[in-house]
Amino acid sequence: MSEREAITGETAILSMSDDTIHSDLHERVRNEVPSHLDVTDVQYEGPDLVIYTETPREFARDDDILGTLAHALRKRVTIRPVPGTQSSPAKAKEVIHDVVPENANIQNLEFQSSTGEVFINAEKPGLVIGQRGSTVREITKEVGWNPEVVRTPPMESSTVNNVRNYLTQERAERRDFLANVGEKIHGSPDKDVDWVRVTTLGCCREVGRASFVLHTPNTKILIDCGDKPGAEGEVPYLHVPEAMPLTELDAVVLTHAHLDHSALLPLLFKYGYDGPIYTTEPTRDLMGLLQLDYLDVASKEGRTPPYASEQVRQAIKHTIPVDYGAVTDIAPDIKLTMHNAGHILGSATAHFHVGNGFHNIVFSGDVHYEPTRLFNGAINDFPRAETMFMESTYGRRNDFQADTDESEARVREIIRETYDQNGIVVIPAFAVGRSQELMLVLEEAMREDEIPTMPIYLDGMIREATAIHTAYPEYLRDGLRQRILHEDENPFMADQFQQVDGGQPMREEIAGDEPSIILSTSGMVTGGPIMSWLELLGPESNNTLLFVGYQADGTLGRRIKSGRTEVTLEGRANHLTLHCRIESVSGFSGHADRNGLEQYVKEMNPQPETILCVHGDDQATDQLSSALYQKHNIRTHQPKNLETFRFP
Amino acid sequence: MSEREAITGETAILSMSDDTIHSDLHERVRNEVPSHLDVTDVQYEGPDLVIYTETPREFARDDDILGTLAHALRKRVTIRPVPGTQSSPAKAKEVIHDVVPENANIQNLEFQSSTGEVFINAEKPGLVIGQRGSTVREITKEVGWNPEVVRTPPMESSTVNNVRNYLTQERAERRDFLANVGEKIHGSPDKDVDWVRVTTLGCCREVGRASFVLHTPNTKILIDCGDKPGAEGEVPYLHVPEAMPLTELDAVVLTHAHLDHSALLPLLFKYGYDGPIYTTEPTRDLMGLLQLDYLDVASKEGRTPPYASEQVRQAIKHTIPVDYGAVTDIAPDIKLTMHNAGHILGSATAHFHVGNGFHNIVFSGDVHYEPTRLFNGAINDFPRAETMFMESTYGRRNDFQADTDESEARVREIIRETYDQNGIVVIPAFAVGRSQELMLVLEEAMREDEIPTMPIYLDGMIREATAIHTAYPEYLRDGLRQRILHEDENPFMADQFQQVDGGQPMREEIAGDEPSIILSTSGMVTGGPIMSWLELLGPESNNTLLFVGYQADGTLGRRIKSGRTEVTLEGRANHLTLHCRIESVSGFSGHADRNGLEQYVKEMNPQPETILCVHGDDQATDQLSSALYQKHNIRTHQPKNLETFRFP
Repeated sequence: MSEREAITGETAILSMSDDTIHSDLHERVRNEVPSHLDVTDVQYEGPDLVIYTETPREFARDDDILGTLAHALRKRVTIRPVPGTQSSPAKAKEVIHDVVPENANIQNLEFQSSTGEVFINAEKPGLVIGQRGSTVREITKEVGWNPEVVRTPPMESSTVNNVRNYLTQERAERRDFLANVGEKIHGSPDKDVDWVRVTTLGCCREVGRASFVLHTPNTKILIDCGDKPGAEGEVPYLHVPEAMPLTELDAVVLTHAHLDHSALLPLLFKYGYDGPIYTTEPTRDLMGLLQLDYLDVASKEGRTPPYASEQVRQAIKHTIPVDYGAVTDIAPDIKLTMHNAGHILGSATAHFHVGNGFHNIVFSGDVHYEPTRLFNGAINDFPRAETMFMESTYGRRNDFQADTDESEARVREIIRETYDQNGIVVIPAFAVGRSQELMLVLEEAMREDEIPTMPIYLDGMIREATAIHTAYPEYLRDGLRQRILHEDENPFMADQFQQVDGGQPMREEIAGDEPSIILSTSGMVTGGPIMSWLELLGPESNNTLLFVGYQADGTLGRRIKSGRTEVTLEGRANHLTLHCRIESVSGFSGHADRNGLEQYVKEMNPQPETILCVHGDDQATDQLSSALYQKHNIRTHQPKNLETFRFP
Repeated sequence: MSEREAITGETAILSMSDDTIHSDLHERVRNEVPSHLDVTDVQYEGPDLVIYTETPREFARDDDILGTLAHALRKRVTIRPVPGTQSSPAKAKEVIHDVVPENANIQNLEFQSSTGEVFINAEKPGLVIGQRGSTVREITKEVGWNPEVVRTPPMESSTVNNVRNYLTQERAERRDFLANVGEKIHGSPDKDVDWVRVTTLGCCREVGRASFVLHTPNTKILIDCGDKPGAEGEVPYLHVPEAMPLTELDAVVLTHAHLDHSALLPLLFKYGYDGPIYTTEPTRDLMGLLQLDYLDVASKEGRTPPYASEQVRQAIKHTIPVDYGAVTDIAPDIKLTMHNAGHILGSATAHFHVGNGFHNIVFSGDVHYEPTRLFNGAINDFPRAETMFMESTYGRRNDFQADTDESEARVREIIRETYDQNGIVVIPAFAVGRSQELMLVLEEAMREDEIPTMPIYLDGMIREATAIHTAYPEYLRDGLRQRILHEDENPFMADQFQQVDGGQPMREEIAGDEPSIILSTSGMVTGGPIMSWLELLGPESNNTLLFVGYQADGTLGRRIKSGRTEVTLEGRANHLTLHCRIESVSGFSGHADRNGLEQYVKEMNPQPETILCVHGDDQATDQLSSALYQKHNIRTHQPKNLETFRFP
């Protein structure tokens, strides 16, 4: 998936043993490397093994050496030149511009002499990499520098820029951190793995505060650490002994960036955790965006945030990105593989291979099984997956969502009707996921004249989140990826999309203006600019409030959707009566519906032995677990928070 | 049950709130006590509240004062005289001998001036106490000393003597310990009790290493801590975070003394635990006996015992005895009540009342539901018991034991047949429980001439264990208690019982002698003198090896019972072929059979909502939990070790 993969010689290491290579590491590497190649030093860098050499050019000449080494050493291997063995940056720059096709559009080069890496920022990174990595290898052969290829996002994203700049700035400290993590990962497990356990710290018989501890005799891993929308006091049970002390966690795995999975991750660093977070690269960036917003919303609402922005930076600094499908050692007895979950950008299903073939546990995270406009459908194809923790948001007997085509038609109809009444359609939406889906629907509808072309205002972090999507097109659905990479076809850059960047005066102006469409956060009407829109547009009967996403228990969104028209907005004195039209269209969820959840399980091969239904309310988890048991004869559980299950 | 109860004014406090009385304790006591009575000091002593007074005689005059205080303060209350307010020991001795009827047979008096207590050792303690405590109150009124009445056992028991002497010697340290424990128990709970959890550390889908952690937001309690017969390496999972650090456990509760429940309790003290063990008085003594023997056997077999005898003493010193039926605060949010379990001497079912009416959890411990010759049947009458952890030793579909009358007849028949062949019957038996049951059967059979009178040799700790039984007749079945208290009817003191106290030479002599019956430990043929008996008697076809108790998986007893006649005795060079007759008679188990387990549940009122079947092998727990679910519509689980269940 990632550009890096092509040059690190990754190979399938799922079924290999955890034979320690630590004590005699240098010697073992030396033995595997042909004698004409120099091995000056060998170091761990997180899950990877880095070989420093005075002969980087000769390494690059051997097409197979990385694959051979990875297989022999049972690690992912990266080659780095010993400082001083490379051409000068000036000379190297010349060669790189020579070797790389011009239409790759190299934006800038950054030479890191401490690691021997050259960061090549380009609009078309694929052209820098070349067929199976041939161009980057050519560069190394010529100049001795190790190219790290980075995509210049087509839409500028301050989040992406900030994260990249911050990581560059923290590079030295991060190298120490990665070396430390590497030492731990590649040590021998102390004890035989004769059990693996999962403790539920949240999101059982509820939607929100996802958090689990996965525990073997050697290792303790936290999976997700979210908040609960509409119930700020209900945080994951981190203080129980299964999780404490947090400093003894070996790793954290984050399935995706939504706050009900990520909001409280920075808290771990406040309490002394300093280990890695494994997640995808886009999730790292989105999580930073959403966590900072979480702090912002909390302080605006007069709550004391549980941590500060410094801890968000800590979380980012401690993130080790993993690509979909890449098997990664994260502990001496655990290999992690993340797979596309189809839910939001970078969202993943986390597959844990525990022990040397002892057991496999999958955490579905939030999944969408069918492909959507944005993403390919969730992967449910695991070589082995005896146990699965499965989301059940729409697990109720009748939780069937409308067909997407019908849903889109209904949205267009509502927009046309509101337009005809000279009204404005306001859509509460998660900044991440549903907003981009709707943007694609609306852009297409206007392009094809199915609705009148009118301004589509993006309020809150929607534009920024969209820019992050364009920075990681590899994570988008196949066709969409191509369109984004051609600037004039990038649907997110259509003219009608306008950022609400003028605060309340701009909102008032928009509210008094011609018909338009507004996408605004938060998606469950629990805070953020949607509150202003409610105040401005709610009292007028020609406007429409349109729900397209899941509204959790206890949120204002749920109350309004259920028919409540008298609302009091927190932090605002005025009581408000909604006279606007209130509509709800299903079919845009980032979650599989009941049918999708059943299909997901049904089409697994082999089927899991045990499924634990979580991330759904009492009825949803109960009804889904009963159905899976009855229809598929799989042992199912409906866990409570604070329980521990042992496998196998 | 106990003599002490009569003078501590205990009352039912099950449903009362945990209102703290700590900060203003002295004042509150002062307010409740009539003004003519002095309150010099108020102290906690474990679960009890002790009032020190200069007017002990006046307190004793008021029949109701203790009950009134206990009710008002919601604590068990004891009154102690301030030193110096009592008559001299000489004068007091005179008065006591005056007041107590002569046939109480006072053996000796011991004055403890530090506590104002006088220990009255008597053969008939009931006569010292008098009707509803009238005689002891009379003593206090006259002399100001507080009588503590102790039974002189009819059979001398070195265990009972040693424990009592040791506790007397450690009295000062114990008082500090009890004061500490009291402070903790009677503090306010820090957090609301909105959950209670149980983690299984052993004895799930297996028989052995019983151990559970009961956990609330404020409190962590360990229940039992046993070994696993036939699998010495398999100890409870004490190292998991739910139990660690052991120093943070608030209390330990022991259901009964058998090693599969008690063997590893002393280990806790090795790892720094210094809190209380709650159990019955006879369990305390039996546990000491069995643990010391456990150390002895381990070192004889060349294993390194996991702890030393010093830790056994620690365990005894930290034991706070509780009587059957007495509701006892053991933490700010937990009340414990132990009930007769009918299994062995002092065996208990532990009922935990959690929070202020929040939830009730019962650990059955090992139960025998029907009365036996030795014990009344297990109590299953709880005001509330929403959740029950239930033993399932004989939980299999066909685990029905023979009728007791038939079993006894069969034993007599086997004995007669062996006698007629001039052979010896050797019966492997637990020192505690089955041995005494058999002694009663054999004594009666000889007395009634149903079998020839012949020597019955007791090898191992059987005699000592029997003596402990006679020290606690209140814990025996009603009729038996009376017989033990009349020396000439005490069945355990019949002439034919002879201790094997001459070691191997005596065994060889017995083996070469006339027909006899031998009861010898260990009950599952895993070590101890039974190994010598196998060697001496097993090769001869006129002898009989008779199994009457449960033989766990992995034990030599199980293998022989299943038909194996070629055995190798550990630590002995010789291979052995058994030619003796091998018989097995069920119906003497200390465990309820499948029918008894079902009846136990069926007759509960109200029925528990959830039953977790433990302490049985895979099949037994599976089949019992299925049956209870299907027949009684109770939610059942078949836990694994290392799982955590949350209630309600």
